[in-house]
Amino acid sequence: MMKKKITAIYPGTFDPVTNGHLDIIDRAAKLFDEVIVAVAVNISKTPLFTEKERMDMIIKCTGKYRNIRVEVFNGLLVHYAKEKNASVIVRGLRAVSDFEFEFQMSLTNRKLAPEVTTIYLMPNEKYTYLNSSLIRELAKFRGNISCFVPSYVEKKIKEKYTKRK
Amino acid sequence: MMKKKITAIYPGTFDPVTNGHLDIIDRAAKLFDEVIVAVAVNISKTPLFTEKERMDMIIKCTGKYRNIRVEVFNGLLVHYAKEKNASVIVRGLRAVSDFEFEFQMSLTNRKLAPEVTTIYLMPNEKYTYLNSSLIRELAKFRGNISCFVPSYVEKKIKEKYTKRK
Amino acid sequence: MMKKKITAIYPGTFDPVTNGHLDIIDRAAKLFDEVIVAVAVNISKTPLFTEKERMDMIIKCTGKYRNIRVEVFNGLLVHYAKEKNASVIVRGLRAVSDFEFEFQMSLTNRKLAPEVTTIYLMPNEKYTYLNSSLIRELAKFRGNISCFVPSYVEKKIKEKYTKRK
Amino acid sequence: MMKKKITAIYPGTFDPVTNGHLDIIDRAAKLFDEVIVAVAVNISKTPLFTEKERMDMIIKCTGKYRNIRVEVFNGLLVHYAKEKNASVIVRGLRAVSDFEFEFQMSLTNRKLAPEVTTIYLMPNEKYTYLNSSLIRELAKFRGNISCFVPSYVEKKIKEKYTKRK
Amino acid sequence: MMKKKITAIYPGTFDPVTNGHLDIIDRAAKLFDEVIVAVAVNISKTPLFTEKERMDMIIKCTGKYRNIRVEVFNGLLVHYAKEKNASVIVRGLRAVSDFEFEFQMSLTNRKLAPEVTTIYLMPNEKYTYLNSSLIRELAKFRGNISCFVPSYVEKKIKEKYTKRK
Amino acid sequence: MMKKKITAIYPGTFDPVTNGHLDIIDRAAKLFDEVIVAVAVNISKTPLFTEKERMDMIIKCTGKYRNIRVEVFNGLLVHYAKEKNASVIVRGLRAVSDFEFEFQMSLTNRKLAPEVTTIYLMPNEKYTYLNSSLIRELAKFRGNISCFVPSYVEKKIKEKYTKRK
Repeated sequence: MMKKKITAIYPGTFDPVTNGHLDIIDRAAKLFDEVIVAVAVNISKTPLFTEKERMDMIIKCTGKYRNIRVEVFNGLLVHYAKEKNASVIVRGLRAVSDFEFEFQMSLTNRKLAPEVTTIYLMPNEKYTYLNSSLIRELAKFRGNISCFVPSYVEKKIKEKYTKRK
Repeated sequence: MMKKKITAIYPGTFDPVTNGHLDIIDRAAKLFDEVIVAVAVNISKTPLFTEKERMDMIIKCTGKYRNIRVEVFNGLLVHYAKEKNASVIVRGLRAVSDFEFEFQMSLTNRKLAPEVTTIYLMPNEKYTYLNSSLIRELAKFRGNISCFVPSYVEKKIKEKYTKRK
Repeated sequence: MMKKKITAIYPGTFDPVTNGHLDIIDRAAKLFDEVIVAVAVNISKTPLFTEKERMDMIIKCTGKYRNIRVEVFNGLLVHYAKEKNASVIVRGLRAVSDFEFEFQMSLTNRKLAPEVTTIYLMPNEKYTYLNSSLIRELAKFRGNISCFVPSYVEKKIKEKYTKRK
Repeated sequence: MMKKKITAIYPGTFDPVTNGHLDIIDRAAKLFDEVIVAVAVNISKTPLFTEKERMDMIIKCTGKYRNIRVEVFNGLLVHYAKEKNASVIVRGLRAVSDFEFEFQMSLTNRKLAPEVTTIYLMPNEKYTYLNSSLIRELAKFRGNISCFVPSYVEKKIKEKYTKRK
Repeated sequence: MMKKKITAIYPGTFDPVTNGHLDIIDRAAKLFDEVIVAVAVNISKTPLFTEKERMDMIIKCTGKYRNIRVEVFNGLLVHYAKEKNASVIVRGLRAVSDFEFEFQMSLTNRKLAPEVTTIYLMPNEKYTYLNSSLIRELAKFRGNISCFVPSYVEKKIKEKYTKRK
Repeated sequence: MMKKKITAIYPGTFDPVTNGHLDIIDRAAKLFDEVIVAVAVNISKTPLFTEKERMDMIIKCTGKYRNIRVEVFNGLLVHYAKEKNASVIVRGLRAVSDFEFEFQMSLTNRKLAPEVTTIYLMPNEKYTYLNSSLIRELAKFRGNISCFVPSYVEKKIKEKYTKRK
């Protein structure tokens, strides 16, 4: 008997996608039949990049994978997961300070959708301290971000801050 | 093209297996083609149960799964994973205090065997505070452990402490 | 000689009151002669419910206790405690991330009012990951909140989000 | 109607009692009708002081309180609490690293004896970093401990290390 | 051969400077040849005091040191450090919750400017729980802040809240 | 007027010295006039290497620095620091779990010797998860340690485990 196909969702704001995110995506793509990178709309904060731009950057940087799809989502993650028949939610876990928020999210999602399992991957130690807001902060002040994001993303973020001036 | 079969290893001392462990095993069995529950020999501490007893309890409590195997292992976990062609190591993550040890283990294993991915699952909140040493402590002083371990394990641990007197 | 009457204050925003808060209130009501549930005005954030609504929900859910009073307070907690002749401040402690803020608050209050003792209670593990902002987030997206708040609160929060549309 | 008498237990190894412990005892004595300081037998470690010596030091340092009793206990804390009709267990909480152990203990005890409430007090900031093993370490190497323990305890610990030579 | 002169930068918002900051400044002044207290412009939050007022208070409270300079800075800290030929960044570390942010900052700065070393000092335990936002909160509600800030700062903050009324 | 010479002590067990330790030593050597690497005798644990071997490995790996001395020390660190006229104790800070122990040590040492300042350095992120016990564990099971320790130390540790068989 064959095991049923497993779809995993990797949700995030990806404003912009970093090498740390791509490291998680690479791992997830090897473990599951299909991975949906789900770009959250995030109404509470004003993102630097529009949803379309954020999706576009992820698509550009994950072209080599056959089993990855990029989508926008809104609302509750577990509702979205059910709609997509996903049985896995993938999250990166970089730091102790992430832990308790993730714990809360994992347990709440489990209560709302027991058939969905949240799994955590730890990124390469090179990306431990890396997040999108750090990238934006560095880029804003003309700091060098070339070892933190792919060159396509570096180009896009520089354009952004040049236009803004 | 078919995705290759994924083997996951769930290592631990399992002295004895608890409902929290079984919760992780259940989740892992649904995500991966094969799950090897790997009972660590643990030379540094004297366990309550022998390796054979610990394996036997896990086998008894996981009989309903077709894709679970129980084995004893010794030495470095990544060497064992390679030997078994496993590409996933499964770990439970219950508390902040687990986090940094796991982080170290995850990063070290990644350096030694980049093809193996460590994933973390958070158990049901009922089992957040549950571990084998708590079970042994409670059992030793005749505390009630029936909601923490399967009844077969409860029986075995009671026998152990009765014999010991 | 009789011990003097002990009044305890349980402060919070309670926007809205959850099962986790009610668990703490129940415990506090059994330990102290009088418990004042003190609803903070909270000028810095715009609450979902008005102070009156928040008080009303707590009153409805704590009707069975004879030694509980619900009040609104503003300003410094220790000044309020002194005014009420309270010698105890009760706080719930759910997570490591709460700890340091609480530690700061406890030590500062102690310096300002050495005669007031802050005590911490840990809620039932079912409520570990529960807080009011999670409830609001779930309710906003029509997630099921019936196991997190009393039915009266569930009704009120649904009304709120229906009106808002 | 009168509130029933509340007995609280403050358990510990007290090897030896420190100013931090005495700070907690002072607070507890003001909040509850009776406080039992319960000296744990602790079979797993060899204490510096015998149970009798540890009790004796606490008795000497708490003579001014009318509602404090000092006892030795063995076995499960909740069994002991029930035997004493205690409805409160008092614990000091000094550091994040204490938190998760305490959380586990609190939740387990709650499951085994729902009628007993564990409460946490944070000691004065002067005692944040203070524990008995630090005292023993300092005393062993002739470090000055006079601001960490009462003078009676200081005398006793010096005798201990003098005899040991 | 003589060791080259070491310049250290102690960056912060200092809104206002507290006894905890002054404790770190005192320590740094004894360790390094020159210490620049660098007042961050902080565009994202509206400070209580202007940059000039914040500088003025630090200057008044550090008059006795010959090797301390107070400056305003904007932009990336490492760029500023390079500009000043500083090889040390000094940070206070008061709590676990500071740790991960600091870790991120330390590693990022190291990547951007390997020749600059970030060092951490822990303030006196009296100042563990002390920060500028606590001071502002207390002052706003007429709480006593005299043991947390120098008297000059106390005067200035009182003026601020009196004017504001 | 010239600043007085600053001597710093970097204490540890160094069983064996790792690339993480050497990273800290390199930084300290650039900041202070003299650095004493102080090998702790550590009576409570049986080290893999003798004190002489541990010193020898550090000396071999730090030959290029003119201002580093390696010594054995026993007893209280602050007594040793005073004896050496050291005004700085250097510690590496790698993880949240180190933090509270370090905090305790820092505050205690400050109380015992206010003239000595403990400073913390964070090692390169490559060494975040690295410690001597991990090295020993890996070496014991023939894991590859070449990227964690200098080649001289690698050779010595291999000899150790070969002899032990």
